[in-house]
Amino acid sequence: MKKYLTLFSVLLIIGFHANAQDDADAFKIKEIFEVAMTKGECYENLRFLTKKVGPRLSGTTGAAAAVEYGRQSFHKMGFDSVWLQPCMVPHWERGAQESASIVASQTIGTYQLNAIALGGSGGSGLVGVTAPVVEVKSLDEAKELGSKLKGKIVFYNRPMDPTQFSTFAAYGGAVDQRVWGPKIAAQFGAVGAVVRSMTTRLDDVPHTGSTVFNEGVEPIPAIAISTRDANLLSEVLKKEAVRINIRTFCEWLPKEPSFNVVGEIKGSEFPDEIILVGGHLDSWDVNEGAHDDGSGVVQALEVINIFKQLGIRPKRTIRCVWFMNEENGQAGAIAYADWSNGIPENHIAAIESDRGGFTPRGFTSEGDESTYLKNFKRVKAWESLLAPYHLRIGKGGSGADISRLKPQKGILFGLQPDSQRYFDFHHAPNDVFENVNQRELELGAASMAALVYLLDKYGL
Amino acid sequence: MKKYLTLFSVLLIIGFHANAQDDADAFKIKEIFEVAMTKGECYENLRFLTKKVGPRLSGTTGAAAAVEYGRQSFHKMGFDSVWLQPCMVPHWERGAQESASIVASQTIGTYQLNAIALGGSGGSGLVGVTAPVVEVKSLDEAKELGSKLKGKIVFYNRPMDPTQFSTFAAYGGAVDQRVWGPKIAAQFGAVGAVVRSMTTRLDDVPHTGSTVFNEGVEPIPAIAISTRDANLLSEVLKKEAVRINIRTFCEWLPKEPSFNVVGEIKGSEFPDEIILVGGHLDSWDVNEGAHDDGSGVVQALEVINIFKQLGIRPKRTIRCVWFMNEENGQAGAIAYADWSNGIPENHIAAIESDRGGFTPRGFTSEGDESTYLKNFKRVKAWESLLAPYHLRIGKGGSGADISRLKPQKGILFGLQPDSQRYFDFHHAPNDVFENVNQRELELGAASMAALVYLLDKYGL
Repeated sequence: MKKYLTLFSVLLIIGFHANAQDDADAFKIKEIFEVAMTKGECYENLRFLTKKVGPRLSGTTGAAAAVEYGRQSFHKMGFDSVWLQPCMVPHWERGAQESASIVASQTIGTYQLNAIALGGSGGSGLVGVTAPVVEVKSLDEAKELGSKLKGKIVFYNRPMDPTQFSTFAAYGGAVDQRVWGPKIAAQFGAVGAVVRSMTTRLDDVPHTGSTVFNEGVEPIPAIAISTRDANLLSEVLKKEAVRINIRTFCEWLPKEPSFNVVGEIKGSEFPDEIILVGGHLDSWDVNEGAHDDGSGVVQALEVINIFKQLGIRPKRTIRCVWFMNEENGQAGAIAYADWSNGIPENHIAAIESDRGGFTPRGFTSEGDESTYLKNFKRVKAWESLLAPYHLRIGKGGSGADISRLKPQKGILFGLQPDSQRYFDFHHAPNDVFENVNQRELELGAASMAALVYLLDKYGL
Repeated sequence: MKKYLTLFSVLLIIGFHANAQDDADAFKIKEIFEVAMTKGECYENLRFLTKKVGPRLSGTTGAAAAVEYGRQSFHKMGFDSVWLQPCMVPHWERGAQESASIVASQTIGTYQLNAIALGGSGGSGLVGVTAPVVEVKSLDEAKELGSKLKGKIVFYNRPMDPTQFSTFAAYGGAVDQRVWGPKIAAQFGAVGAVVRSMTTRLDDVPHTGSTVFNEGVEPIPAIAISTRDANLLSEVLKKEAVRINIRTFCEWLPKEPSFNVVGEIKGSEFPDEIILVGGHLDSWDVNEGAHDDGSGVVQALEVINIFKQLGIRPKRTIRCVWFMNEENGQAGAIAYADWSNGIPENHIAAIESDRGGFTPRGFTSEGDESTYLKNFKRVKAWESLLAPYHLRIGKGGSGADISRLKPQKGILFGLQPDSQRYFDFHHAPNDVFENVNQRELELGAASMAALVYLLDKYGL
């Protein structure tokens, strides 16, 4: 009987201890959210980054200013060390304002399209290119037409599927047209390409993004047009053959030196175990990059601010990285991974925020297959601590800037905000500070800080 | 052995059947979401209601127009029957544009406040009331000051708590100041009241809402001011005593006849079992009532549209109700409950949408305590079918328009959207169509339709 009692007591103590631990963690996470929503700095940091620094496409003066802003911000934050990690970035510039019009149509006369040149596309010069339009719904359809595209402007018009619950899934199902469509058009001798903007919204806002010309294919003028104009152009094409004039002034310039901004707080017990938080500092040139990815970088830095405010001295090394050149080359991500994997370092975890500053719903995660399931099971057990904030931990991608760290066999997370509104703003002129909600932004930062707190405390 | 085999076979068949059933339901719910997002009418209906009908405070011509718009919309939708259910509603009008200023302060001179009269408050006339300001943080503090408030303007300035994850909880913790503060001020002889706007945002937008004068208390002028101005006024009061001038032209007019709009599809098997979907048709007079509660009414009607598009003939009676006068009296809700409970009818379930047209996260539910837990357990079992759309079924309130149906012992749901942005717009001039996102609105409608589908198919 005594033996049983002793065993019972031990179980009781263990049980009590586990609960007390859980309570302490729950309390700390509550504090993290409270600090984020009362003493948070990320919203004001985002205001500065978007309104004072502004657009910051890789290779431009805006991006250089952003790096300097990052360096100063990191120093102010009181990291143990701050450094700039060099990388060579592509330098594409839009030049003067582009334009595109349907020319002298029988149906609607001359009609100015809401258009925006795609990043990486070629310039047409002052006169522009004018050619008949061929509408297709897929890359395969373009390839089948093959030599019939010679001298034409190819119009890729497959919409994002609105029935996908995740707008990222809908984006993934349509964006091949923007990424590869212009190159395929060029390979068959087309003189220009038009792509339906990547959004499920029906509006007048054109969305840019990268298009890829490689294998010695000379960039041709390529534009995105608004979804409403894409529908209109398609309607007109049902009635008559029409020609479009595209005028763009884009050009490729020599590569430029640039940098990731890196700050680190050395772990007090396990300094070699690194937990990374990050986002990307560069943005497209047509907006303030407020959701993409101003939100991500200020949230990553906010994790440090929250730890500082709460006086949490991490046991493991916390590193904050503002990556350069996610949008059109990922030179920063490559430089970081080459360096870190080369040493090799030991990132036990990394969290990227690059899906907009919307209400967080949790994290997706991935990792090297040799360790992922074990790691996933471990962090999944923390979900009940995150449940009060409606956060789940699931499987899925992490992010373009950290996924190259898989060889270090840690676990890689992507913050997963509500995705419904992201593609209203993505790569478009309306991705501005005013369209980011303070509470949503702060909740995302707090969610990241809560996960970092658990990763730091318990490790993998 | 044969016996075992037979038992095994039976279990297998039951198991298979259950899975097949689940699969069929999962497929139907997928169709519901697809129809909502491709053939949905709620977004365009909301455009009409907000842009063509516009503001529709009870008793006003706007509300009468909204009822007629509802009647016509319901007839077009092809209900089995449509009727207007009468109720007598209060009629308060704002009159000419209100204004409020800090008068001749040493610190900032004369300063125009961003102000909006509270619904139900009294008019000051052309000259307005001018009096010294007394700042308090609670009703209790006002009561303690008691007779010291005589001749003064009482300024209620306790902010909504930003650390509450649910903004509705934060609202609930502060709104007593708006609802009862002006009356308490009047009771102690104050000549006016100023209330900090009910939002966690720091901005220049004032938010109205109802204030209650009863027990023979004559309404005094009462305004809400923007949060930024509330902070400013508080700052000035730290430096000096200041006076405010409030000018409002509000008045109470005789009650007006009005209506709930009701449409019904008779159940094919259990016509006496009613499933209600609803929202409220009235709005405040200073905005388009887009989130509050245009979204709710068009979502409720959309449930019927989705069923029609999918050719679902319900087994139980589906009733759609656009309630009148939720904002300042709930005369419509009372008329409906009195009539329905009096018969008595049998609402096995009711779903209200009145928390904004944001991404749905699930439903809260309540009911008569004699049946609620059993009912909750039953519907909770359907959660896995709703999980692909990130919907949860929890406990909590349903809504002001349906909660009086509890005596019928069904289960009452409130659609629960993400709450983070609701109080950016609530009762404020910026609650307009442009601030509602189409996908979020449609997902809410689909969520309601999915739950109605399950309630209709399986009952309680």
